[in-house]
Amino acid sequence: MEFGITFKGFVSPDRARYLVRQAEAAGFDYCWFYDSHVLWRESYVAMAMCMEHTTRMRFGPCVTNPNTRDWSLAASLFASLAKQSKGRFDIGLGRGDSAVRVMGKKPATLARLAEFAEKVKALVRGEEVIYGECPEPVKFPWVDGYELPVWIGAYGPKALKTAGEIGDGLILQIGDPALVKWFRDQAIEAGNAAGRDMSKFRVMAAAPAFVGDMDYCIEKTKWFPAMVGNHVADIVEKYGFDSGLVPQSLTSYIEKRRGYDYSKHGQSDNPYLDFITDDIVESFCVLGGADQHITKLRNLEEAGVTQFNIYLDSGDEEKIIADYANHIIPALNKNK
Amino acid sequence: MEFGITFKGFVSPDRARYLVRQAEAAGFDYCWFYDSHVLWRESYVAMAMCMEHTTRMRFGPCVTNPNTRDWSLAASLFASLAKQSKGRFDIGLGRGDSAVRVMGKKPATLARLAEFAEKVKALVRGEEVIYGECPEPVKFPWVDGYELPVWIGAYGPKALKTAGEIGDGLILQIGDPALVKWFRDQAIEAGNAAGRDMSKFRVMAAAPAFVGDMDYCIEKTKWFPAMVGNHVADIVEKYGFDSGLVPQSLTSYIEKRRGYDYSKHGQSDNPYLDFITDDIVESFCVLGGADQHITKLRNLEEAGVTQFNIYLDSGDEEKIIADYANHIIPALNKNK
Amino acid sequence: MEFGITFKGFVSPDRARYLVRQAEAAGFDYCWFYDSHVLWRESYVAMAMCMEHTTRMRFGPCVTNPNTRDWSLAASLFASLAKQSKGRFDIGLGRGDSAVRVMGKKPATLARLAEFAEKVKALVRGEEVIYGECPEPVKFPWVDGYELPVWIGAYGPKALKTAGEIGDGLILQIGDPALVKWFRDQAIEAGNAAGRDMSKFRVMAAAPAFVGDMDYCIEKTKWFPAMVGNHVADIVEKYGFDSGLVPQSLTSYIEKRRGYDYSKHGQSDNPYLDFITDDIVESFCVLGGADQHITKLRNLEEAGVTQFNIYLDSGDEEKIIADYANHIIPALNKNK
Amino acid sequence: MEFGITFKGFVSPDRARYLVRQAEAAGFDYCWFYDSHVLWRESYVAMAMCMEHTTRMRFGPCVTNPNTRDWSLAASLFASLAKQSKGRFDIGLGRGDSAVRVMGKKPATLARLAEFAEKVKALVRGEEVIYGECPEPVKFPWVDGYELPVWIGAYGPKALKTAGEIGDGLILQIGDPALVKWFRDQAIEAGNAAGRDMSKFRVMAAAPAFVGDMDYCIEKTKWFPAMVGNHVADIVEKYGFDSGLVPQSLTSYIEKRRGYDYSKHGQSDNPYLDFITDDIVESFCVLGGADQHITKLRNLEEAGVTQFNIYLDSGDEEKIIADYANHIIPALNKNK
Repeated sequence: MEFGITFKGFVSPDRARYLVRQAEAAGFDYCWFYDSHVLWRESYVAMAMCMEHTTRMRFGPCVTNPNTRDWSLAASLFASLAKQSKGRFDIGLGRGDSAVRVMGKKPATLARLAEFAEKVKALVRGEEVIYGECPEPVKFPWVDGYELPVWIGAYGPKALKTAGEIGDGLILQIGDPALVKWFRDQAIEAGNAAGRDMSKFRVMAAAPAFVGDMDYCIEKTKWFPAMVGNHVADIVEKYGFDSGLVPQSLTSYIEKRRGYDYSKHGQSDNPYLDFITDDIVESFCVLGGADQHITKLRNLEEAGVTQFNIYLDSGDEEKIIADYANHIIPALNKNK
Repeated sequence: MEFGITFKGFVSPDRARYLVRQAEAAGFDYCWFYDSHVLWRESYVAMAMCMEHTTRMRFGPCVTNPNTRDWSLAASLFASLAKQSKGRFDIGLGRGDSAVRVMGKKPATLARLAEFAEKVKALVRGEEVIYGECPEPVKFPWVDGYELPVWIGAYGPKALKTAGEIGDGLILQIGDPALVKWFRDQAIEAGNAAGRDMSKFRVMAAAPAFVGDMDYCIEKTKWFPAMVGNHVADIVEKYGFDSGLVPQSLTSYIEKRRGYDYSKHGQSDNPYLDFITDDIVESFCVLGGADQHITKLRNLEEAGVTQFNIYLDSGDEEKIIADYANHIIPALNKNK
Repeated sequence: MEFGITFKGFVSPDRARYLVRQAEAAGFDYCWFYDSHVLWRESYVAMAMCMEHTTRMRFGPCVTNPNTRDWSLAASLFASLAKQSKGRFDIGLGRGDSAVRVMGKKPATLARLAEFAEKVKALVRGEEVIYGECPEPVKFPWVDGYELPVWIGAYGPKALKTAGEIGDGLILQIGDPALVKWFRDQAIEAGNAAGRDMSKFRVMAAAPAFVGDMDYCIEKTKWFPAMVGNHVADIVEKYGFDSGLVPQSLTSYIEKRRGYDYSKHGQSDNPYLDFITDDIVESFCVLGGADQHITKLRNLEEAGVTQFNIYLDSGDEEKIIADYANHIIPALNKNK
Repeated sequence: MEFGITFKGFVSPDRARYLVRQAEAAGFDYCWFYDSHVLWRESYVAMAMCMEHTTRMRFGPCVTNPNTRDWSLAASLFASLAKQSKGRFDIGLGRGDSAVRVMGKKPATLARLAEFAEKVKALVRGEEVIYGECPEPVKFPWVDGYELPVWIGAYGPKALKTAGEIGDGLILQIGDPALVKWFRDQAIEAGNAAGRDMSKFRVMAAAPAFVGDMDYCIEKTKWFPAMVGNHVADIVEKYGFDSGLVPQSLTSYIEKRRGYDYSKHGQSDNPYLDFITDDIVESFCVLGGADQHITKLRNLEEAGVTQFNIYLDSGDEEKIIADYANHIIPALNKNK
């Protein structure tokens, strides 16, 4: 199983420099960054910085989108980082959320996302490319054939289909093994239907991890189900409450949430956290003592997860990485 | 006198890593990069990389422009690099040449250049900013009041006026002391006329430097007068051949070049180099033995130059930096 | 107040590289290493490595001794490390404990320790020096006048006198404020008696620190009073149980320990830990919640301590440094 | 063919940091340091520093000796550096020249050299070792079985025999292909006679290299034949002038030198350089244009040399490394 960490822009440069070294020494394989250049620092120069302090770890945005940057700019960033790091660069790709909304722009359609993936891969590889905004074909004379891995972030059935059809990997922003399997199977199925060999297809579960007393862990990670709530609610509503696929704890969570939404509609304060039960937090994140992490990660692995990616957003970052180094990663990868 | 080096994207990452260390140890103060993300690698991630290998040296594009990047993207890059390097970041700014033309875009007007400088400085400082393309005001919550130094690249009288009125510095792409003085005085005058205190105004002369036998030096740097020829020709024509300000060698160079342009108009091969005489190359660059460099740099200093910026484009880069370290910088800055 | 950390050789190179970065970012001023080249790795090359990953932090052995290395070898190491780090090198000096005993050698006399300090300082400074083992005078042609700070480790009255008379600082391996003051005052008094200006004299308290539940902290640091027990017992016996200077908890600890020593004399197992009471561990170390650390460190500061040096020997190293960064150092140095 | 560079202590830390990066990027495989801690800085902490700036390059003293350091100190340094660099550490070993003489000590016998190699290898590997000076057996609990490569510096027949019998490699301080072959064959023969498999035995030719006009090259490297003259003279005398093995230019050089030695015996000025003819300098070093380097290095390769090690002692260091990077190493290793 691969392990990743994800930084928001909150982390100071001095901390990022040693945290990536700590994570690499701990056995982490990937360091991802939120790509949202107004809310946080520009992630690509942070990646460039962190690459100088690592030799094996891979980097990438988690996730970028087709609407923030002119595609030649995006592709030049990606190809340059791949070259500087001797090939340690992937991208995570979504339709665009905070990064585009904060500028008053809109998320991209799935068709545009797929075209972005194709054109940017071609530019990074060294091909001449024509794309919408650019009046002339673009070709980088300085690249050398790097094949850019593209992971696609998805929840909904159409996005999962796109991920399976064109992605090198799938990003699932949730830590519940049953849900992960349910999402992942849809992508694999779409890939198979499109005639792809899905044996190398990669599946990331991205969620907070917190080691310690369960009450403390839940308190620290309660923000996460709130953040993914909207996405999950859409899915639950679309697939129905009686499909048998969605866990009981989740359907009741969404029911409460819906009721709540209706009664408090239009209020400016955010009372959503009250409706997030402890078992939802526990289900969506990876929490508790080291043994509980190991058990849950084994379940995720069985559900098809190839990479567990920790959102380092909740404090105690040094301690979490150290606990993964000392107890959890060795247990999961003991045969490596 | 400050000293700088300028990289194009040609330099491999492994070479860049040690060349900036060599240059910093040699006493160089600045490392500039061409900003032209299609022709060469994306310079900002190269700067981020080089910052990790230096502690004192400053970095910046030489030059960026207002038309390649959405302004929030540009400002986020600048502020992020300033933060990562603890304040070692400036920008050089022009109207846009290869970076925009290669994408079929046009250079910016001087008014747009001035607005870009103002808005980007404000964003980097932390202010809320509204600019043309963006439907909503933008503000970076993560910045901390950095004052971004903006150097403006200029040849023509209007650009020189803009540089003097709003720039922190002026970039002159030529090594001839008399011409430098003539350009520089126009900017200073414009600044004074606008009521600015010009005592801290900075003036960069950017040109190739080559140490060795003069014939060898000229052979290696002949490309430079060809590159700046168009710009200089415009100036000479505008100011006339008898103004007394433009050196004889230059006016005769432009005369030959004009005749050439007319007779060979439309030919696809580039025969311009034939018309560049040795004394023009010698005048535009800094060439010869160490003593000749020292003499010329003293003349540039008297002409008002505060930074000599070497275009490292012509080979022998390690040797040139070593010669500046051992012989030339110590002679110029012996009282430092 | 200055803060330090101390590594034994246990730390892997990859961990040391990021732990010093973490500690420097956290506000720690010193990183010390045990110097015992058989039991652990050679500390000086580890220091050289760590210097490359820091810019402000100082390094040194805690402690070296006059009997492990030929004095020219010792002085060459010290001067070389001072030069490589641009002056970020001190030494801690003792009579020699594990480093010499493990080779069947004996600790040095205090007179030899004082001579070593004097001769090594002179060699590092660039003077020609004659010393016992060397048939010819030695002088380093490559040094440049560095004044090597020498901190002397001491418990007993004669060693404290030597520290006060010739040291730049005093190393006290104990975290009890009252004992620290009692030891420290003896060194200051000796320095004053010798006519030195003791206003810049530095006093380090070196002890484990552990943040968390007190029982857990005590369990993790119980080894420390055992290690310092012999030294302290000597002092208590020498000064008597009724002097009024030694705290009640300590005298009763030593009484129990003595009785134990007599009854179990010559047994090969080490049952000493049974006699170390919780209040002794709490008194000798810095333990508990962040507030308890802050209170104790303020007491140590009032007792004359200028540097608190954490023995990183007990696990949870990343967490301890993070807790000091986030809560403890800012509280102690808030007016800095 | 492998390539190495050798630093004396003259190089400043800031230069060493980028020169090793330049050399690694250029394709050099080894960076060696003189080990003479009084005349120059302590080389092992310089190696530790340089290791942090390289990932592939190997380091070692060229040469250390059995008489400067207690053997446990030497072995702890070696094993620690091997561990810090993940196995990028060899040693060169000689009987002791400047490093011991400057302290009034004597070179070691060949028997002692062989014992040092054996015991130090065993300590580094993790075995318990008893050696002369140490009253108790020594064993490093922290090592992990590293096999330390030992290259032996030799000129004379007995030293060459020892090198062949126990060394992993042979260091020849001379660049003349015929002499190199003559020395090398003696070592190989001794190894074969001892029943060793000599197919992996490595042979280094260490000499200055200088690129440029031959007169300038000779002027810059004339010090080298003077330095090796004593050693070579001993050999020539021992083997006779008519053996047919020693080149004519060399025997006449030694004849002139002998006469000189007798007539000017005891004078304090050093007139030896007068007797070093240009062809001797050319023969002992690698000089001239890039083509001349390539030809000579091919001859050395045919003579059995597996590594050419450049003494970087003569100026123009950055340029020499760059010339090797751009022209010479690619020509020699084009099939790699």
